[in-house]
This record gives sequence, C-alpha cells and structure tokens, in this order.
Amino acid sequence: MDQIFGFEVSEIVGVAAGVLTAASMLPQVIKTVKEKQASQVSVVMIIVLIAGISLWIWYGVMKDDKPIIYTNVFSLMVNFFMAGCKFKYRHNSNT
Amino acid sequence: MDQIFGFEVSEIVGVAAGVLTAASMLPQVIKTVKEKQASQVSVVMIIVLIAGISLWIWYGVMKDDKPIIYTNVFSLMVNFFMAGCKFKYRHNSNT
Repeated sequence: MDQIFGFEVSEIVGVAAGVLTAASMLPQVIKTVKEKQASQVSVVMIIVLIAGISLWIWYGVMKDDKPIIYTNVFSLMVNFFMAGCKFKYRHNSNT
Repeated sequence: MDQIFGFEVSEIVGVAAGVLTAASMLPQVIKTVKEKQASQVSVVMIIVLIAGISLWIWYGVMKDDKPIIYTNVFSLMVNFFMAGCKFKYRHNSNT
C-alpha cells in the first residue's frame, strides 16, 4: 500500500472520512442555534443517527480502533446537542 | 471473538452501524419532500457529508471492504437527492 509521510494512504483517507462525517452535523447545529428554528429538521433522522453512531462506538471498542471510537464519541455528543436544539425549537418556524 | 449464527459479533454490529448511519438521511428527505420546505436545513452539512461519504467509498475500495462501499454508495445517492431537495425548496418556509 502507498505511504505518505510514513502513514498508509488508507489510514489517512479513513481518518479524514471519519472526521468529515462526524463534523457534518456541526453546521446544522450552528444554523439551528443562530436561527432558533428546527421545525423542518427530522427528529427520526437524529434518532437513527444516534443509534447508528452508538453501534459504531461499540464496533470501535470491539475492534480496538481508536479513530472510530474518538470520531464517533464526538459525533454522538454533537447529535445529542442537536436533539436538544430540535426539542427546544421544534415549534418555531420563520414567520 | 463471540459468534452469532456463524457471524462475528463485530461484523454484525459494523454492518448494522453502517446501515443505520447510511439510512439516517432518508427520514429528512421524506420530511422535506412532504413539506416542500428546506430553508432550515444546512447546506454546509450536506456538502461536508457528501465529502466524507466520498472518502469512505475511497477507503472501502482501498480496503476492499464491500459493506463500507455499499452502505456509503447508498448514502451518497440519498445525500445527492437531499442536496437537490434543499436547492429546490431553499426559500420555502412554513408561513
């Protein structure tokens, strides 16, 4: 496998992929906190995501794969915060 | 490692995790198509997600990991569709 600065390319791509997908909910959280509106955000999406992320953490623990554990623990915290925002602003619309 | 019906527990958890996180955007797509409103959905979230999912597919191809490839190709299609919905309904609000 090719290497860059002593790292496997696949490791770099995997960690970058994990960081991007973990960070993807952040812009939504920022937008929701700013606008105080979340009536259009799907609560089912957040619940399914939290379930999936929890399983990724379990998978990471079983495989002893630290990048998977860390990126998904971060992701879980962001999504719990988003769930709180959704609950708080669930009835708000931009009228 | 423990086994259930001949499968490694870690494999089952990994595939379940992949399917859930890949399917998580579906409820958002359904809600958006029904309500024809997407002004509160973050376009940056969708772009970052598409970038992350694309890297996961690259990672899956390098590792020859079929569950990672399949769940993320599915996820990519759902997110491109969501990007289309966001563009179509970007100015709509529930007035």
